[in-house]
Amino acid sequence: MDWPSPIDLLGAAAGLLTTASFVPQVLKTLRTRQTRDISLVMWLAFCAGVLLWTVYGFLIEAWPVVITNVPTLALAGTILVVKLRNLKNE
Amino acid sequence: MDWPSPIDLLGAAAGLLTTASFVPQVLKTLRTRQTRDISLVMWLAFCAGVLLWTVYGFLIEAWPVVITNVPTLALAGTILVVKLRNLKNE
Repeated sequence: MDWPSPIDLLGAAAGLLTTASFVPQVLKTLRTRQTRDISLVMWLAFCAGVLLWTVYGFLIEAWPVVITNVPTLALAGTILVVKLRNLKNE
Repeated sequence: MDWPSPIDLLGAAAGLLTTASFVPQVLKTLRTRQTRDISLVMWLAFCAGVLLWTVYGFLIEAWPVVITNVPTLALAGTILVVKLRNLKNE
């Protein structure tokens, strides 16, 4: 692999921000277990979309897209799981 | 512009899902005005990251990245604004 270009670094910064942004939401959700204000449909569609972004990034060889979407899927998936578990009580 | 390739269409599907996923969250947030379970830090960092993705997509000429991140910013920004307005009461 070549050294990352300035554009790659910009993509990495973008990915770091959007991926890391889910960490405080995951921590909050795991701590409070409260998901009443969180939309189920949003997190279902979002997880599906992030999966497709990963495949797309792989196909166009845009590595910031790939390596930021994989952890995003894990984080967003965690929120989705807590929401699904809470559904009966909401 | 050339006709979109299958890979472009995959990117468009990915973008449609992740962008459209915010619509139900925006509708829920505007309807209930409740944002207690939503993380402020997440939405601040997320909006900043989406802005950088837009610039990145423009620079690498990955049009699905650009045209899906612009509406995402508008939708996520709406949630952020409601959260910021509610901060005093949470």
